[in-house]
Amino acid sequence: MAIRIGIYGYGNLGRGVESSIMQNPDMELVAVFTRRDPASLQIQTKTAKVLSVNDCESMKDQIDVMILCGGSATDLPVQSPKLASMFNIVDSFDTHANIPTHFDEVDAAAKAAGTVGAISVGWDPGMFSLARIYSSCILPEGESYTFWGKGVSQGHSDAIRRVPGVKNGKQYTIPVESALAAVRSGAQPKLSTREKHTRECFVVAEEGADLAKIESDIKNMPNYFADYDTTVHFISEEELEKNHSGIPHGGFCIRSGVSGLNKENKHVIEYSLKLDSNPEFTAGVLVAYARAVYRLSQEKVTGCKTVLDIAPAYLSPLSGEELRKTLV
Amino acid sequence: MAIRIGIYGYGNLGRGVESSIMQNPDMELVAVFTRRDPASLQIQTKTAKVLSVNDCESMKDQIDVMILCGGSATDLPVQSPKLASMFNIVDSFDTHANIPTHFDEVDAAAKAAGTVGAISVGWDPGMFSLARIYSSCILPEGESYTFWGKGVSQGHSDAIRRVPGVKNGKQYTIPVESALAAVRSGAQPKLSTREKHTRECFVVAEEGADLAKIESDIKNMPNYFADYDTTVHFISEEELEKNHSGIPHGGFCIRSGVSGLNKENKHVIEYSLKLDSNPEFTAGVLVAYARAVYRLSQEKVTGCKTVLDIAPAYLSPLSGEELRKTLV
Repeated sequence: MAIRIGIYGYGNLGRGVESSIMQNPDMELVAVFTRRDPASLQIQTKTAKVLSVNDCESMKDQIDVMILCGGSATDLPVQSPKLASMFNIVDSFDTHANIPTHFDEVDAAAKAAGTVGAISVGWDPGMFSLARIYSSCILPEGESYTFWGKGVSQGHSDAIRRVPGVKNGKQYTIPVESALAAVRSGAQPKLSTREKHTRECFVVAEEGADLAKIESDIKNMPNYFADYDTTVHFISEEELEKNHSGIPHGGFCIRSGVSGLNKENKHVIEYSLKLDSNPEFTAGVLVAYARAVYRLSQEKVTGCKTVLDIAPAYLSPLSGEELRKTLV
Repeated sequence: MAIRIGIYGYGNLGRGVESSIMQNPDMELVAVFTRRDPASLQIQTKTAKVLSVNDCESMKDQIDVMILCGGSATDLPVQSPKLASMFNIVDSFDTHANIPTHFDEVDAAAKAAGTVGAISVGWDPGMFSLARIYSSCILPEGESYTFWGKGVSQGHSDAIRRVPGVKNGKQYTIPVESALAAVRSGAQPKLSTREKHTRECFVVAEEGADLAKIESDIKNMPNYFADYDTTVHFISEEELEKNHSGIPHGGFCIRSGVSGLNKENKHVIEYSLKLDSNPEFTAGVLVAYARAVYRLSQEKVTGCKTVLDIAPAYLSPLSGEELRKTLV
């Protein structure tokens, strides 16, 4: 019998989860839950229902794992504990500083309800967390470096669009090649924020807007741009649509360490991602961990887990025997 | 109290394990076991004993985890099950085709004795097995590629040294750059053995040997060289010593996959290693998994495990709380 999945929230990420489920024959999409009018929603899976989020409790016995596809700012802090009290869940909560609190809240709800909740499942946090833990445990004397991009940062794109005179905009985060090269050499450089990433903005201005002022407002925006070398390009709405409508992303997680009695040998471990679609890739990670959550739940495990707490074999549809034969 | 470690076999790998333990303050080397005369062995750790392999059983209660540092051809198939009947063990068994059998033998011994055995811990199998399972579960529609090098292959170096007229030699396995580039592009090429790697040999010939014959013998050697583009350089013993005495290695594990309703988005996951010392890096992996084995044993787990069966958090000296705060 297939693992029965629910999708809670049907934006870019929810649609990504739906298409990812189609690539996993041991999974079945049972229902999509939406805050919109269910009648207004078109989904791809003919056999799945579209329901209001208010009706999710009635589906308790028909869903093995609920995949939460809301945002980390306001959705998941509320939804994850609430849904963990009814379902096994997976979320992609990515506000790093609040992970301990989010973990505790989901853990309490899941333990009380006898469910499993996997949080912060995606690529950072998620796959990059795995890259960091494995590499730092193997090379305890060393430095870890994380670079993001080249890719679209939604937060920075939103920030641009809030600048007066800006009609639309997209921001790319770009790792500095020379910094990457220095890290890969095994040199363990100290790198400032400015030395690691640059920011490139494509901006559609409102007619008659003061372009110099927009550029200066962006470049000097605290937290978002002031600490970076930022480039601003003014382009037309058509150009933005044509060349910048994708949501690519990626990045590099590098550990540089030493071994030997005199620390004479250098080692570099690098994990990198090059993604055409950030939400679809994140969806792939969520779906693999939904399989793990289902299995943990079958083993009567309860409570909150991160990717660090889950053995890799749980992600695979193959048996231990098959894995040892073909993959180890 | 520190985790008490024994090292079984004191070659390159055993020495690497000893220096790795020095980088992990929660671990303590208790004893090195050797087949040689213990009195003839100089080790670096003043507080540790050097004992004969025949005396290991007497140390049963003083060692939490035994790290096996023998070879996969003849040592580990015998030693791992035997020692798992007395100790928790970790080994780096790397004969891929025999992993299922080795697993079953260690599993039976460990379950009977109430111990834990982690096998095939290193970088391939080991870290590359992890790269393969995570990436293939996240991107189920795709292809996995493993490239090795640039690095010294002990097996191929040994094969060269068996050729008549050869006094000494070293072989480097080198990934073909254009093949790497094709895989990274997301193209999912079909690559033959010859298209993936080249082999470069540095050979010291005996005086008066027929160099043309040696070169032909090497290049046409079945399994080892015949399927590859192989280069043979004749050099002096001094040159070999000066430029080729290191044991560097590394490689690339790449998954190229697609997502989206029409499979329109490409994703590339790459895990790579660049290692100055193959045995010292492997030692770092063994020691991190010794920590995991110790903890599993504390939790009353028994039997054989591979890296796929062990949750990453077990490798770290940090608590779950610390990990969520600093690393996830």
